[in-house]
Amino acid sequence: MQKTGKVWLVGVGPGDPELVTVKAVRALVQADVWLVDDLVPDAMQCYASPGTQFISVGKRGGRCSVSQASIHAQALAHAQAGRCVARVKGGDPLLFGRGGEEAEFLRQHGIEVEVVNGISSGLAAAQALGIALTHRRHCHGVTFVTAHTRDDGDPDWAALVGSRTTLVIYMGMSRITVIRDALLQAGMKPDMPAAVVMHASCVEEKHWVGNLARLAEAADAGLASPAVILIGEVIDLPESSSLTDQHAFGDLAGGRPSVQSQHHLQCERQRTGQEHDVTEGTHPA
Amino acid sequence: MQKTGKVWLVGVGPGDPELVTVKAVRALVQADVWLVDDLVPDAMQCYASPGTQFISVGKRGGRCSVSQASIHAQALAHAQAGRCVARVKGGDPLLFGRGGEEAEFLRQHGIEVEVVNGISSGLAAAQALGIALTHRRHCHGVTFVTAHTRDDGDPDWAALVGSRTTLVIYMGMSRITVIRDALLQAGMKPDMPAAVVMHASCVEEKHWVGNLARLAEAADAGLASPAVILIGEVIDLPESSSLTDQHAFGDLAGGRPSVQSQHHLQCERQRTGQEHDVTEGTHPA
Repeated sequence: MQKTGKVWLVGVGPGDPELVTVKAVRALVQADVWLVDDLVPDAMQCYASPGTQFISVGKRGGRCSVSQASIHAQALAHAQAGRCVARVKGGDPLLFGRGGEEAEFLRQHGIEVEVVNGISSGLAAAQALGIALTHRRHCHGVTFVTAHTRDDGDPDWAALVGSRTTLVIYMGMSRITVIRDALLQAGMKPDMPAAVVMHASCVEEKHWVGNLARLAEAADAGLASPAVILIGEVIDLPESSSLTDQHAFGDLAGGRPSVQSQHHLQCERQRTGQEHDVTEGTHPA
Repeated sequence: MQKTGKVWLVGVGPGDPELVTVKAVRALVQADVWLVDDLVPDAMQCYASPGTQFISVGKRGGRCSVSQASIHAQALAHAQAGRCVARVKGGDPLLFGRGGEEAEFLRQHGIEVEVVNGISSGLAAAQALGIALTHRRHCHGVTFVTAHTRDDGDPDWAALVGSRTTLVIYMGMSRITVIRDALLQAGMKPDMPAAVVMHASCVEEKHWVGNLARLAEAADAGLASPAVILIGEVIDLPESSSLTDQHAFGDLAGGRPSVQSQHHLQCERQRTGQEHDVTEGTHPA
């Protein structure tokens, strides 16, 4: 009788192949087949064994090139054929992204599923900005919320404002003006610090820093999905610019948004002590 | 002139050495000196180069064996002496844990600081329970909140209940009855599913599953700091037990809390396809 395979539900983090866990690497190396989300960069294939079959099952911004049902069916078919499957997802499979639904389906069909946590892009965005998501001076916590919901209903923005936690909003760029208006209407102050980070941790990383009232300027500046929106007092700590040396920090006080891009990976790989190459944007010092 | 060193602010995740990122491993291997938090297991030293100096700077439950000022001073002194320092922290340095303050201090003294994200114990707790922290059927997001605050003030529990996000509460075990009462008073229903995971991802991992009204039973069952408390509808998805095969899931319906421990690491290392060794607790299935 043929041995049934296994499915690893692997979070590979925000995009930088160095932000993958050791356990994820083990899963990726073992797998015969990768079912790969759209947002996972090709560079991640550095962890694949020779002969691995790569299947793109990308979905982006609601435009389903591959349906969820098809993803389920493909994972099931490969596992039932005795293969070790890596279902490769950006971020952490247990935070948004429907990892729970995929595991549920497979388990109902008798397939062994093992989940590997990953770094969520919201945390990588904080690293990119040089801020902490929480600071005991400002807040009791942080809320990760999606603006893209099953029934297109909205989160309770008023309650989120009331929670006084840092807000990290996923999948919100296409609704950025709606989010801004909802937060203002809920009583959040217009000058509440806000930022957007696109492609956090990746070569293509860009960010914008400003405030709630000017939030839509991030979209005007060219930032679009995949990006996270961060809102909260933690963003304008004067010391916020100090967390990392290689990241410049936007001008919060002067009202000038800054868009910055960096060649993070290349620099990491060429690291010999020199400064990172920041090709766009300004260092407000 | 002596070259100034550098400080890596490294998140090594919830405890399992396999849940460390590749970038964290690179930082740990490079470091001459580790300044290590109390909750970081000794097993993490597998990533140290020969001759590395290990300095424990543990703080636990508010009892400061080493003051924050002393941690700052030691990191600074080693960096100024030209050493590469790994400030080794559990979880992610940007989520609780005062990573921002340490980076701020060092940067003000001209020290290069680089932050490496890590897996937060709240996500590892979800993996341990076999649940996702978000599910589009139930909630728009998840809030990570600390019950231990600078002025001992509390989060706005009523606003958090109103947000209808999954709640992941850090450092709450010593105040578990206060938290339970505050959430009930804020209108959360007594049978809201709740869980506690202690030592998520570690050999010593234990968890309890029940509901809000019975939350204090987790402490009675022996669960204590370091642990995270999880509260929300996502916990009692019938399919929640399906996310991982090696983790049994507590009995939600019958009112029996379950305490389970597993020898995760040993099993991972001895993995030859056999079942994991679950030494305590019952499999309700």
